[in-house]
Amino acid sequence: MNPASDFTRLRRMHERGHYDRATVHAVLDAAPLCHVGHIIAGRPVVIPTLHWREGDAVYWHGSAASRMLRDNAGGGEACLTATLIDGYVLARSAFHHSINYRSVMCFGRPRLVADPEEKLAALAGFVNRLFPGRWDALRPVTEQEIKATSVLAMELTEASAKIRSGPPGDDEDDLTWPIWGGVLPVHLAAGAPEPDAHMTGGWAPPPTPGC
Amino acid sequence: MNPASDFTRLRRMHERGHYDRATVHAVLDAAPLCHVGHIIAGRPVVIPTLHWREGDAVYWHGSAASRMLRDNAGGGEACLTATLIDGYVLARSAFHHSINYRSVMCFGRPRLVADPEEKLAALAGFVNRLFPGRWDALRPVTEQEIKATSVLAMELTEASAKIRSGPPGDDEDDLTWPIWGGVLPVHLAAGAPEPDAHMTGGWAPPPTPGC
Repeated sequence: MNPASDFTRLRRMHERGHYDRATVHAVLDAAPLCHVGHIIAGRPVVIPTLHWREGDAVYWHGSAASRMLRDNAGGGEACLTATLIDGYVLARSAFHHSINYRSVMCFGRPRLVADPEEKLAALAGFVNRLFPGRWDALRPVTEQEIKATSVLAMELTEASAKIRSGPPGDDEDDLTWPIWGGVLPVHLAAGAPEPDAHMTGGWAPPPTPGC
Repeated sequence: MNPASDFTRLRRMHERGHYDRATVHAVLDAAPLCHVGHIIAGRPVVIPTLHWREGDAVYWHGSAASRMLRDNAGGGEACLTATLIDGYVLARSAFHHSINYRSVMCFGRPRLVADPEEKLAALAGFVNRLFPGRWDALRPVTEQEIKATSVLAMELTEASAKIRSGPPGDDEDDLTWPIWGGVLPVHLAAGAPEPDAHMTGGWAPPPTPGC
């Protein structure tokens, strides 16, 4: 990873920037979804999608018929950004309000995973990352399903993380202002699993990812 | 709103598309943050930011020195996408796995809110949307803080929502496959408020937004 390019180096709030592989990987692995930006007909287009990571590459998938995947597969540049919100930061002045968050931004030219075996392994990794062991317990994929699914891979050659944590950074003179100051933490939480109407046995649901 | 342009009309899974103002507004209002895509030096750049809505326009803000705001203020196109994940959808085949989500995509050319009074009103609306009544209780903003903050507004003239909800859509033949099928719901939840070390009184925290 050669992370601190002109595009990923933080110019402002640079104390929030992280360029080491472990931090970038950890944020990517923790984020339930990402937003991929690319250029279509000269316009920026930002599409939410699930992603997963294998080693030093990030993957995403979709219908082979999708506009986004077709465009990305053409060798165009993409920017994949994944963000988790960790809390609202409440200061004594509006100006110092903020959020605690973890975010990763990756630039690159995604490649279409064309080899059927590599594609199959990537999709199995995707399912098993969310639900360990589930791939082998599912009704096996068909050749047609594999064909209808496109997988893109992007090497993490130009990536950075940006993280804010901790209490508000109020101006010294404001600290006695009569109002609550601190952090309201938030996190993704699981609700009660909702089995569908078709189950024929008493199967147990897997744990909810990331919760 | 003239939503169903070539860019916002769903080509695939078109039953998931919504183009009415009320749906677009509701998703924008529920999402804690968004991702804004723009083109810088010919590359797509996707940046997470907080947003808020007033009427039929979406707003975001940042440092007047920021690369993103400077670029967007130049009249360039932007794509603002906000996504909430509502659950993991577990089917009997890998192919029919999905997520339940609500997402909005808006295209436009953001304008810089230059008028100081309009900017002030927008920022007050931003704070009060998250924490009702908080703006007037804060240490008043200074002229310098207003100057240092850029606010962008984008009319929702080309916007659409995409929503998936409900159980998995398994193939008929797979319904007896011996595995759990259904939805694992997720939602953003509040942790215990963390007051900082500086409070001089027993002020109460506001409710956590969206939780």
